[in-house]
Amino acid sequence: MIKAGVVGYGNLGRGVCLALEKAADIENVGIFTRRPTESIKPVTDVKVYSVSELEKFKGKIDVLILCGGSATDLPETTKNYLKDFNTVDSFDTHAKIPEYFDTLDKVAKESGKLCAISIGWDPGLFSIARMLFGAVLPDGNDYTFWGKGVSQGHSDALRRIKGVVNAIQYTVPKEAALEAVRNGENPSLSVRDKHLRECFVAVEAGADKERIESEIKNMPNYFADYDTVVNFVSEEEVRKMQQKLSHGGFVLRSGNTSEENAHLLEFSLKLDSNPEFTGSVLVAYARAIARLAAENKTGALTVFDIPLKYLSPKNDGELRKNLL
Amino acid sequence: MIKAGVVGYGNLGRGVCLALEKAADIENVGIFTRRPTESIKPVTDVKVYSVSELEKFKGKIDVLILCGGSATDLPETTKNYLKDFNTVDSFDTHAKIPEYFDTLDKVAKESGKLCAISIGWDPGLFSIARMLFGAVLPDGNDYTFWGKGVSQGHSDALRRIKGVVNAIQYTVPKEAALEAVRNGENPSLSVRDKHLRECFVAVEAGADKERIESEIKNMPNYFADYDTVVNFVSEEEVRKMQQKLSHGGFVLRSGNTSEENAHLLEFSLKLDSNPEFTGSVLVAYARAIARLAAENKTGALTVFDIPLKYLSPKNDGELRKNLL
Repeated sequence: MIKAGVVGYGNLGRGVCLALEKAADIENVGIFTRRPTESIKPVTDVKVYSVSELEKFKGKIDVLILCGGSATDLPETTKNYLKDFNTVDSFDTHAKIPEYFDTLDKVAKESGKLCAISIGWDPGLFSIARMLFGAVLPDGNDYTFWGKGVSQGHSDALRRIKGVVNAIQYTVPKEAALEAVRNGENPSLSVRDKHLRECFVAVEAGADKERIESEIKNMPNYFADYDTVVNFVSEEEVRKMQQKLSHGGFVLRSGNTSEENAHLLEFSLKLDSNPEFTGSVLVAYARAIARLAAENKTGALTVFDIPLKYLSPKNDGELRKNLL
Repeated sequence: MIKAGVVGYGNLGRGVCLALEKAADIENVGIFTRRPTESIKPVTDVKVYSVSELEKFKGKIDVLILCGGSATDLPETTKNYLKDFNTVDSFDTHAKIPEYFDTLDKVAKESGKLCAISIGWDPGLFSIARMLFGAVLPDGNDYTFWGKGVSQGHSDALRRIKGVVNAIQYTVPKEAALEAVRNGENPSLSVRDKHLRECFVAVEAGADKERIESEIKNMPNYFADYDTVVNFVSEEEVRKMQQKLSHGGFVLRSGNTSEENAHLLEFSLKLDSNPEFTGSVLVAYARAIARLAAENKTGALTVFDIPLKYLSPKNDGELRKNLL
């Protein structure tokens, strides 16, 4: 049995605990939290420890699954965990990945530990699709579409507007753009062409809706470059929408192998729960990290470095017989 | 520069030559054929040698791309090439893969060479999708659909019927089955539910079309278990259809991470030319084999064993920066 620990218990930590229930070869040793342990009510039957107790588990946990956020938590904490444990995380600040990788690779090599960074669906499965598609169809273009799903950053931006009580923003891929790609038109797509931004906004009684809608639609970086739809709804409706954490997206590549012959490759996800699915991907890569660490590998890895067989509980012979 | 040789020059060998043109880091050293060399008119600017001349290239070719058929050619010849060269092939007789793998793994380890077997899109990219999808969503079902595309085996079966002059058979995925999977219904699908068999048949003058249609539809193994549509057309129409080598298919997996939350993963291909695309996949794996052999790896590998980064001409840092 592989022994895994779960660090952090927000939506993602909850998703990881659920995924560990479905992994017969991995034991969930415990949740490690910075909050008061008694405040955590785990979704599965698992012990809850204070994160300060982690040092007692040195040598007793094969891999820590880190469920903190990319903005401030992971860049600060992963390098410390890596001194004593192998880790897997979902670091998703694209622009900072090279720096994050280099830092952790150095720490892990020094401590003799192994980590996988940027695991999930984007970065993660979508990165695999982009890389693989480009390698097998080099003369072409690829396109990534996200949604329909909630953008936390854009929802936050809406809530900062004066008069807005609560709000949620969905990123929606534009069907016409998807179809143009699928038709092999190799279109040049602006940000406006690819995604629509759909906002559901609850405002204070008597608020100036016209002013709020105009502020949203003209907000630089967030909305000005997009077609934006603003719907005014009740607070209760926004809260209800916030319960659903569905998401998804598409990676497409179209290209040619000769003048006459074109091809289309498409990978898509439709997820009821973004954190539960991301948690499930993290668990598969936790398996890989525990196994590769047992083979004395050290340093930092990404989805590009790990042979896929390490993700599966099936042995090599079974994989060749049943899945090849 | 990686030096590659192309063994065999049918549709697949032609596709490999085209793909090598698009690989700036790989040189096409030559086509090696059993036919008279002067009968080969390569699609790209490349030398043609007799396969008997291969031994002169020992140590001068990093990887041979084998473009023979799975039925008789590859099982006989790959093990001989492996004594002196690293190889990549598209062996696709699913039932015989474990045996083929074991034989070649042994030969390659003895000779200090490396090979990748069963490379293409199925087995190949579809195997990757099945394995990866199962690992990240263990509680679910997967479905592979093929087509619309020509089945050589079924076309051959049609041509063996008395009175048939020429014929072609398309395997067509049934839209209703695809939709049921996409709707998360986790359907149990019989072979009849999944694929339709569409036949285009040219017959001798005065042939008994009713008898031929009945023979087709009741042919065990090939057609009896399917809904089969028979169209009688002219020889010329069949020949025209035989020029187009388009194919494609779908791998889908639907499953749950909790009682409430289900997910759908889908990978699809739409190919104008089956052999050109397969050739392009072979070239990416030839790159991987040449590189892994340079790291002194030996034995047999499949798509499950090879870290994806080896397929790309980009270096690790570029991949992390631009594709993760």
